[in-house]
Amino acid sequence: MKRILIITADMCDDSELMYPYYRMLEEGYHVDIASFEKTLIKAKYHFVVEANISVKEVVSDLYDGLLLPGGMAPEKLRQNSDVIRIVKDFYEMNKPIGAICHGQQVLISANIMKNKNATCYPGIKDDLINAGALYEDSEVVVSGCLVTSRRPEDLPAFIREFLKLLKITFNVSKEN
Amino acid sequence: MKRILIITADMCDDSELMYPYYRMLEEGYHVDIASFEKTLIKAKYHFVVEANISVKEVVSDLYDGLLLPGGMAPEKLRQNSDVIRIVKDFYEMNKPIGAICHGQQVLISANIMKNKNATCYPGIKDDLINAGALYEDSEVVVSGCLVTSRRPEDLPAFIREFLKLLKITFNVSKEN
Repeated sequence: MKRILIITADMCDDSELMYPYYRMLEEGYHVDIASFEKTLIKAKYHFVVEANISVKEVVSDLYDGLLLPGGMAPEKLRQNSDVIRIVKDFYEMNKPIGAICHGQQVLISANIMKNKNATCYPGIKDDLINAGALYEDSEVVVSGCLVTSRRPEDLPAFIREFLKLLKITFNVSKEN
Repeated sequence: MKRILIITADMCDDSELMYPYYRMLEEGYHVDIASFEKTLIKAKYHFVVEANISVKEVVSDLYDGLLLPGGMAPEKLRQNSDVIRIVKDFYEMNKPIGAICHGQQVLISANIMKNKNATCYPGIKDDLINAGALYEDSEVVVSGCLVTSRRPEDLPAFIREFLKLLKITFNVSKEN
């Protein structure tokens, strides 16, 4: 069974946490939600879900893909050394990383955006470019193991491409 | 291309509108959102989307499946004769109808629940039983063309079964 890790925190975007979370469950995957501590995560408006693991405890090897929802959580998460360690682990193992909206702030702080095609919420476009990314204004951009989107309305395209990449990566790793 | 109709109104549940809507788009389907009028639909907490067609204008033959999100919208929708006409149309054509949470109030008023296995939000369980349904407390129940679930947390199972039924029905109708 595929194992997916979502890293988020309070004040994340409701849709960007809920849709990917439910969608991975619908697909039959195991999903862990990691945050600073094991606690209830309260999204910006109404969605509440349990973070069942703390980022300190995360063993990156155990997962097949990583999702970073947006909202106001990534600005806090990017300052945490465990979050950065996890993102770098996934990147080095070439495992799918999906980031949407402000989730890309964590990718910027993990210093992995140089020469990568990517998109993000318009408000942080300049930061993505300053981090060395090749910015595109598209609903979804795939570059190596990175899948990025701009906003909640892009979720259908974002998850479609993330799942596609996950299936390719998973089949390749099974062959090795 | 499959065409899906969602009928909803203001004060619907955010997740129960957003997840099925984005999910059908992710699947590559055409989705129309119908309400009393063409207008912006404001869900209970934050989700806003355009109803691009009024229930008056809906031609049921044009669609392959119907979705009824819950929240506080169904109690208003069940009083509308066009909504009832559409639900009966789908039922008579044996096309998939998915209802979640309070969406089943519309099915009750369409008088199609007699001897049907079904579930719903616990608060309207007695109404479903009084309408003749065989109530089950399960995350999802499929009975003929009807797919029902209890609450937002059931969305992964709800959509998984709705899509399964949609694909079977669509393949059967293509063969005929």
